[in-house]
Amino acid sequence: MKPIAVVGLGLIGGSLGLDFSRLGYRVLGVARRPETVEMAMERGVVHQASTDLSLVAEADVVFLCTPIDGVVGVAQQVVPHLKPEAILTDVSSVKGSLVPDLAALWPHFIGGHPMAGKAEAGLAVAEAHLFRGRPYVLTPTEETSPQDLDTLSELVDQLEARRFICFPADHDRAVAWISHLPVMVSSSLIQACQQEPNPELLKLAQALASSGFRDTSRVGGGVPELGTLMARYNREALLSSIALYQRQLGQIRALVEVEDWDGLHHFLAQTQAARPAYIDKMDEA
Amino acid sequence: MKPIAVVGLGLIGGSLGLDFSRLGYRVLGVARRPETVEMAMERGVVHQASTDLSLVAEADVVFLCTPIDGVVGVAQQVVPHLKPEAILTDVSSVKGSLVPDLAALWPHFIGGHPMAGKAEAGLAVAEAHLFRGRPYVLTPTEETSPQDLDTLSELVDQLEARRFICFPADHDRAVAWISHLPVMVSSSLIQACQQEPNPELLKLAQALASSGFRDTSRVGGGVPELGTLMARYNREALLSSIALYQRQLGQIRALVEVEDWDGLHHFLAQTQAARPAYIDKMDEA
Repeated sequence: MKPIAVVGLGLIGGSLGLDFSRLGYRVLGVARRPETVEMAMERGVVHQASTDLSLVAEADVVFLCTPIDGVVGVAQQVVPHLKPEAILTDVSSVKGSLVPDLAALWPHFIGGHPMAGKAEAGLAVAEAHLFRGRPYVLTPTEETSPQDLDTLSELVDQLEARRFICFPADHDRAVAWISHLPVMVSSSLIQACQQEPNPELLKLAQALASSGFRDTSRVGGGVPELGTLMARYNREALLSSIALYQRQLGQIRALVEVEDWDGLHHFLAQTQAARPAYIDKMDEA
Repeated sequence: MKPIAVVGLGLIGGSLGLDFSRLGYRVLGVARRPETVEMAMERGVVHQASTDLSLVAEADVVFLCTPIDGVVGVAQQVVPHLKPEAILTDVSSVKGSLVPDLAALWPHFIGGHPMAGKAEAGLAVAEAHLFRGRPYVLTPTEETSPQDLDTLSELVDQLEARRFICFPADHDRAVAWISHLPVMVSSSLIQACQQEPNPELLKLAQALASSGFRDTSRVGGGVPELGTLMARYNREALLSSIALYQRQLGQIRALVEVEDWDGLHHFLAQTQAARPAYIDKMDEA
């Protein structure tokens, strides 16, 4: 079986290492910090680990698992060490703005996005089977070799992920809707409540908040670095989804203003009917 | 101990009946449908049940547990049967627009709002200890007798609820922030996604939706009747909270438009820091 390299041993890189090791692949890991290298060896995440990027020279497939804003820089350092036919892929949550740059660095590059986040980050929370049943999007371009795509698809399938293949721009538009827009919508909810001018009333609202508020505000209370990166790398799709969102909320406001209760009921009935298509594949908590 | 009557034996009324029966009170239940009366007796929710409102004549405290839009009408029918000193209370989720009407019908009326919803409704899902640890707001006015408030407060405390006392208008403003605004924000998210003009891309977005979308969209996928009643009975506070919300979302949009990533990071860091005050009292799933 082909040796696999993982560059960046955090939650995603570490979990890929655990899975591919478990599946019998020889896995090589590269991390920036010696402590991470040591932990990866101790936990059996990889067979060999180093802070030295030249380790990737042995691999047939290389996963770049560094944060979005570092991935192009790391790719530049990785490329000189690659075997001529090695497949290079990344795990960034945005594709349109990255894929052209990465493909320009390496002809056998294919963008990837395993959608398996956790509240915590880092190798300590990496786990086997993290990708099972979760979406894993591959974003080939017109230039991608079908053989490379087949090889990478087979690996993704062995993770038991739900694999999707689409163009980078389509990926970005889809995740703007279901991942990036919700962060901005949810964050604005928290910020709006904080504008309550009466401090006693704010305290009462906070005390009365229950599961509805908890759920609607969850992704708005996440790590600010992540939300900022989403917006920065998926700016256009996000702006377009915010604009369409504003129109919908404006419509609700107008219905309430003119007391069109039938119209509001119709609006809410539509969203009640629409939601299962997004969530029925998941276990509803 | 004082006999207690519960008018309307759904989730809330049934659960109040179960709790007060358990606590040793004589509980009288009134329901509209004979099947509900029968089920309430069978399940031991009440000691005596009837479709006849005259049953409340025996009670010292009467809980009106009918939907918001029916509560004034039911109160009008209940009042002629009440003992002169009987305390009347309701369980509606909006108070400002109801309390004056109900207080005008009965001098010993005090508004109440036990915040213990469930996804399902009806007597079949009623349960003991439903209110334990959940907020229960009482909304006296300047005319409320302190003795009536004490009596009702004691009953609420026996449910082991977290009791709050505030003016009706303050209650409504607080729940607009943490309960009614989230429904509109969440519903608009679903409706916005549905505006995606490319059906293949909409399908992809639906397939990729995961826990972030599930949580942010949950209350927007709820029963349309409930959301409509919230808006209808808490219109002013909801409109004011929507307006403040729109301003916050507009600020995010502007930050993304001008690519002010430090500004966006600051915004998201503020909401990350603010959220725990709303949810730390709950178990985070």
